[in-house]
Amino acid sequence: MIKIRIDLAKNSYYIFLKNNIFNYVAKCHKKNYPGCRAIIITDNNVKKFYLTSFTNNLSKNNVKFNSYCVFPGEKSKSFHSLENLTDKIIKKGVNRNDVIYALGGGVIGDLAGFLSSILLRGIKFIQIPTTLLSQVDSSVGGKTAINTKIGKNLVGTFFQPSAVFIDPNTLITLPKKEFLAGYAEVVKYSIIDDKLFFNWLNKNSKDTFNLKSENIYKIITTCIKKKAKIVKLDEKEKKTRMLLNLGHTFAHALENELNYKVRHGEAVSVGILMAMKLSQKLGYAKKEDYYVLENHLKSSKLPIKLKQLSNNKNWQIKSIINKMQTDKKSYKGNIQFILCKGIGAAFIKKDIDTNLLKKTIEEFYI
Amino acid sequence: MIKIRIDLAKNSYYIFLKNNIFNYVAKCHKKNYPGCRAIIITDNNVKKFYLTSFTNNLSKNNVKFNSYCVFPGEKSKSFHSLENLTDKIIKKGVNRNDVIYALGGGVIGDLAGFLSSILLRGIKFIQIPTTLLSQVDSSVGGKTAINTKIGKNLVGTFFQPSAVFIDPNTLITLPKKEFLAGYAEVVKYSIIDDKLFFNWLNKNSKDTFNLKSENIYKIITTCIKKKAKIVKLDEKEKKTRMLLNLGHTFAHALENELNYKVRHGEAVSVGILMAMKLSQKLGYAKKEDYYVLENHLKSSKLPIKLKQLSNNKNWQIKSIINKMQTDKKSYKGNIQFILCKGIGAAFIKKDIDTNLLKKTIEEFYI
Repeated sequence: MIKIRIDLAKNSYYIFLKNNIFNYVAKCHKKNYPGCRAIIITDNNVKKFYLTSFTNNLSKNNVKFNSYCVFPGEKSKSFHSLENLTDKIIKKGVNRNDVIYALGGGVIGDLAGFLSSILLRGIKFIQIPTTLLSQVDSSVGGKTAINTKIGKNLVGTFFQPSAVFIDPNTLITLPKKEFLAGYAEVVKYSIIDDKLFFNWLNKNSKDTFNLKSENIYKIITTCIKKKAKIVKLDEKEKKTRMLLNLGHTFAHALENELNYKVRHGEAVSVGILMAMKLSQKLGYAKKEDYYVLENHLKSSKLPIKLKQLSNNKNWQIKSIINKMQTDKKSYKGNIQFILCKGIGAAFIKKDIDTNLLKKTIEEFYI
Repeated sequence: MIKIRIDLAKNSYYIFLKNNIFNYVAKCHKKNYPGCRAIIITDNNVKKFYLTSFTNNLSKNNVKFNSYCVFPGEKSKSFHSLENLTDKIIKKGVNRNDVIYALGGGVIGDLAGFLSSILLRGIKFIQIPTTLLSQVDSSVGGKTAINTKIGKNLVGTFFQPSAVFIDPNTLITLPKKEFLAGYAEVVKYSIIDDKLFFNWLNKNSKDTFNLKSENIYKIITTCIKKKAKIVKLDEKEKKTRMLLNLGHTFAHALENELNYKVRHGEAVSVGILMAMKLSQKLGYAKKEDYYVLENHLKSSKLPIKLKQLSNNKNWQIKSIINKMQTDKKSYKGNIQFILCKGIGAAFIKKDIDTNLLKKTIEEFYI
């Protein structure tokens, strides 16, 4: 088993990596929270594969549990499901010593994490991420959120889990498209500050996509350690942590334009490429950087053009830019961009000319 | 002007007391948050008296603002108004440097505070409490909340304001009944740890109810300092802070039974009396303590019997006790009570016999 400490003073916690981890999770619960209930939140997709295995292990260890299931997808990150879950959980009885488990991908982690942070003004929260995206990204750092009509993740909290348990074997049942969407975030980490890692990803993608255990462990641990380092420096995203949003100001606007009917990671794929294009136009990155990145995303079968995100969308440049300006990272109406001085060298930049932004996005039409 | 520091390490803030305070609030905003918007949340009652005065002062100081109005009363502490406000505020544009102002009583403070803690994962929050209840109690300590179908304040956060501005003059427009409801919380503070203060209240109630300035300032500052001391010891309500819930386990159940169609303070009046009766039955308090408290509440025209909370309610003892058991202060199904060894000596007690509890509540039927 691999154990990684996320060092955040009194909010510190451990991430555990292990194949077939459910028995270990149940044993930890029994040991750390004797007599307390496990409240499991999952979605219909994940439920099919893993809920019984988890609850069987809880029962074997005499841990009482209740489970709650939401529909898969971003639509569940809403005030509506939040209220629904809250009412059901309170009705069954809950107290401040019970523990909420998020069993699923990023949506479940964001929703269950947010719920944990506000239910009875905060109860313990443990993540069991079952997608590549949530294993490498959303399970570290304590951001929780739901979406609003106007934008993504605009309502939420910073709330650290008490532990994260990752079972890389869950990736076997993950649809290929979902795996790839998570892979876009992996590529993002390499672009931020690790050219060597990017080169390794580029060279080893075949084995990675075949879920070679060694590759998966390397990818997950590398990304977690990178994120942990950044989050430690800046838990509340005052500055450094913004680097993790590379490509995300674009991606959030694109997702919103598509009414969230697109995978987050797919939007991120186009988003990081847009960020690299903008960096190139501003003279920070070279054409070569752009093409190396584009080629890797393309050969990974990740989207690199707007039309690949949606066949029948009539993209309106004004509307995209408007959405970017309401992103919560904008400061006094000024969007803060993460740009790159090439692969592995991201930085924060304000005051981007709107015309240049338009021209950049337009290049992704064809 | 009186200035009281609430000492909570990096969450510390000041409470300012001053008659006709709006001009000072506007000046502080201009100085501390230049270029940032004031987002005002209020209710229809408070709006009539104070919104224009506040916004005129903001305009005079060139502070941009938006104001949002909800219906008065506990019903506004709901997921519905939360979502409604969120959508409206985001639509008008908001960023992480803007400041939310809660202009109103406890409901507005709880709702706006909760919203501030989750909007964009937390933006600055300032309280301008306009009722006695919120001035002495809910504006100190950083508890925010909304209600759920099943219970009161079951969803919320611990989120400290950046400042609290109290204008005791706002009590002039406060309905007498509302003033009294707030006064019940004042009495609660004296019962917890200050017999001298209780005696002073008892002796000076006529002047107090006539809003004699000296009395009002003494009451507000005394209660704030008491609460500040307790909250400093135990911000997240692990133990000591529970003392502040004297009478509240009863009160929350009664309010819920009445579907919140009762003033919180009125339920608290009956609640602290029930706590004293229970303390007496268990031999902790004397009969005399009970009667002195009952007399003071009665002569203050606060309710001391269940029927005074509602004329036509058919109270069901089982249902009341059931509600108490789902209160978030209950631990593993065991209700934690705040009892008193007489006036000015509250303490925490678990394992209360349900039959004794029933008998206690039954005494409040007639």
